Amino acid sequence: MASKDRQRLLVDSLRRLVRRGAEAHLRRIVEKARSEDVASALTELPPRESHAVFAMLLADPERAAEVCAAWESSGLPELLGQFDAEELKPIFTELADDDAADILILLPEELRASILEALEDAESEPIEELLRYAEDTAGGIMSTDFFALDKELTAREAIVTLQENPDTEVVFYVYCVNEEGTLVGVLSLRQLLLVRPSTQLKEVMNSDVISVPVTMDQEEVAGIVARYDLLALPVVDEFNKLCGIVAVDDVIDVLREEATEDMMLMAGLGDTDAVLGTTAGAVRTRIPWLLAAVGGGLGAAFLIGSFEAQLAEAAILASFIPIVMGLGGNVGVQASTIVVRGIAMGQIDPSRAGQIMGAELRPAVVMALVCATVAGGAAFLIGGFDLRLAGAVATSLLTVMIFGATLGAAVPLISLRAGIDPAVATGPILTTSIDLIGVLLYFLIASAWLGL
Amino acid sequence: MASKDRQRLLVDSLRRLVRRGAEAHLRRIVEKARSEDVASALTELPPRESHAVFAMLLADPERAAEVCAAWESSGLPELLGQFDAEELKPIFTELADDDAADILILLPEELRASILEALEDAESEPIEELLRYAEDTAGGIMSTDFFALDKELTAREAIVTLQENPDTEVVFYVYCVNEEGTLVGVLSLRQLLLVRPSTQLKEVMNSDVISVPVTMDQEEVAGIVARYDLLALPVVDEFNKLCGIVAVDDVIDVLREEATEDMMLMAGLGDTDAVLGTTAGAVRTRIPWLLAAVGGGLGAAFLIGSFEAQLAEAAILASFIPIVMGLGGNVGVQASTIVVRGIAMGQIDPSRAGQIMGAELRPAVVMALVCATVAGGAAFLIGGFDLRLAGAVATSLLTVMIFGATLGAAVPLISLRAGIDPAVATGPILTTSIDLIGVLLYFLIASAWLGL
Repeated sequence: MASKDRQRLLVDSLRRLVRRGAEAHLRRIVEKARSEDVASALTELPPRESHAVFAMLLADPERAAEVCAAWESSGLPELLGQFDAEELKPIFTELADDDAADILILLPEELRASILEALEDAESEPIEELLRYAEDTAGGIMSTDFFALDKELTAREAIVTLQENPDTEVVFYVYCVNEEGTLVGVLSLRQLLLVRPSTQLKEVMNSDVISVPVTMDQEEVAGIVARYDLLALPVVDEFNKLCGIVAVDDVIDVLREEATEDMMLMAGLGDTDAVLGTTAGAVRTRIPWLLAAVGGGLGAAFLIGSFEAQLAEAAILASFIPIVMGLGGNVGVQASTIVVRGIAMGQIDPSRAGQIMGAELRPAVVMALVCATVAGGAAFLIGGFDLRLAGAVATSLLTVMIFGATLGAAVPLISLRAGIDPAVATGPILTTSIDLIGVLLYFLIASAWLGL
Repeated sequence: MASKDRQRLLVDSLRRLVRRGAEAHLRRIVEKARSEDVASALTELPPRESHAVFAMLLADPERAAEVCAAWESSGLPELLGQFDAEELKPIFTELADDDAADILILLPEELRASILEALEDAESEPIEELLRYAEDTAGGIMSTDFFALDKELTAREAIVTLQENPDTEVVFYVYCVNEEGTLVGVLSLRQLLLVRPSTQLKEVMNSDVISVPVTMDQEEVAGIVARYDLLALPVVDEFNKLCGIVAVDDVIDVLREEATEDMMLMAGLGDTDAVLGTTAGAVRTRIPWLLAAVGGGLGAAFLIGSFEAQLAEAAILASFIPIVMGLGGNVGVQASTIVVRGIAMGQIDPSRAGQIMGAELRPAVVMALVCATVAGGAAFLIGGFDLRLAGAVATSLLTVMIFGATLGAAVPLISLRAGIDPAVATGPILTTSIDLIGVLLYFLIASAWLGL
């Protein structure tokens, strides 16, 4: 892609210029590039070089702040951690409050404290206020840099105010408040242009504003923005006082993060966003799930060991362990993925547990019947036309698949009620449980059929 | 949640009023509700009742069109399919071109043709133009209802034009074109308010516009909007002529769909968006993957059967089938999820295959060593202090886990080069392959250790 080529070119130029120490040339290149591209170029450079580029960038704090705000992947805390509070202060003076808070939360506590210390009170106070909200709530992702006007103003006065404050972040909607700062209405910038200049805002504003409380979970906030196609969503405190706005670009980040997080958790990758992180980091987040699977596998070994007598009589029993385990796991993953994603997308109402279980179990029974028939038939052929073996394979596959689907659909619903993220509880833990119980069911059923 | 309660209330009111045939009352309720809420209420009603409500809605085509445009989940084609072209025509007259095209593509071919036939040429032509673009490209998701102005206009003239066209879709940016309709610049509505009225657009516009070709894949389009925090992205043809815009709310839909699709595909759920669909539909999309797993499982049964002599001598070998299969699969799923998601999020550059494989294999080797040590130790205890059995379990676990991680990381990269969606190729096919080869490796290694 053209954009990827441009990116590669930028990385190469930065490397070359920083090695040559060509500061003026480098700054010109950075000025012409987009902040997002500079940010991702910096993540691709080796630490020493990205440090050198960023040190040059610090001479232009506004630009450096833009680059920090545009930073998308990991690596920013490591980069900033190489500088001290006095060097970083000008950046945080330039940053919007919400971006400043988002970055500070990632920094080591000591550096964070000394940066806040270094800032003027008027600058640090709104940031510290934002830091008090939990990271994954409306308060944690909102910007306090919004545009609210007294509902008594006229359209003309509103436009003048807008023109006098060119530094406020991009404005999509004009929020109207009363004298107490309570949110009472909204109108679009477009509407402001369409009415007579003498019209008061309260005459034209839409007073049915969708707003969310500061404490609402960010996933729910994102769901509302997506559902109602909003460009920004006002955030209010318990007295309906306007505290901030969540803009659509922050919501996009939330949606991508949450989808990634769910996928990672369901694959047993831990709650991390590092796609190409360090080896130690990868091992640390993944090994707990694998050790749990080792535990499950050893449990299965122990179970199978207790059927050693039966196996000695009919070694062929071992042959069908993989099919029973594999299909139980597959059906479980299908059911749990549907339920986890359905909840996340708001397409499933978790309070209707009965309906969901029904919708998952009906196809599971049909599929289990089909697979059991096929596998039973094959077992009949493989096992030397032994009808009892075929019956054992077919009925245990049927049982384990239905059990797998039930557990797969139920675990996310139960964990949601217990206040646990459904994506955490499913994934490897689910498949390991299905494996373990599946193996037990298989040997019990097979022993009964074969009279062992 | 309050919004869920309101939703439930709306569903209940609609049901009650439609049963009573209280048309006037029902229409008042619908008028006061948001289109998005009416749309999801209709999906919750039984077919006969949603048909009756929608029939009443048809008396107000503008409202009916809003409800259709706000429709999010499945069920709209089934609902509209109950009406004929003449009844539906007023809705399609009201709908924006891109929404009309999006809905038409879902309808049965015959109904689609007769609706297009029923519309005036001026209305149907732009829709038919949109229908020609592939659904999942920039052209397929763009709106043709954008605002482009001649770059020679002054700010005052631009504002007047804006005021004279109050029906154009919400405007975020004003796109500037030259006399050939070529995109030459962009400025925000806000900037238009800030400049002197006599300023020409070309003096203030930003001529470094990000635009995309009509043929670009929608995922890539969404990635650009997310990366550069845009509210809308202009779409151009091969001559850089402005054809349409992709708005951020359509991008949000794409991001959610794509994440869902990847999760579904990786779980072997087929390319469907129906979370709570029919039993037949669920069986149809899921059974192919399960039958593939049955095939893999029977292959494993056949393989194990060929080691019957070894199993007869050492039945304990069967005990460790689950741990070898389970961990090979888990490691493979971890590696493939990281790579698939990393590609989708643009955090991994698939052309750097070596770097990606290295980043996945290094932790895999460490984790395999840890798990092999633990499992080998446990096998030593379970197997009656047999060092050879412990060695067999440890080395086969080590081999299968490293093999699983290699396959897991490589398959999405290879399938991307082969032009296959990486999410399709991973999932059940991957785990089934790892199972099959894992079982074979285990028996080969174990036979060697035990001298069988």
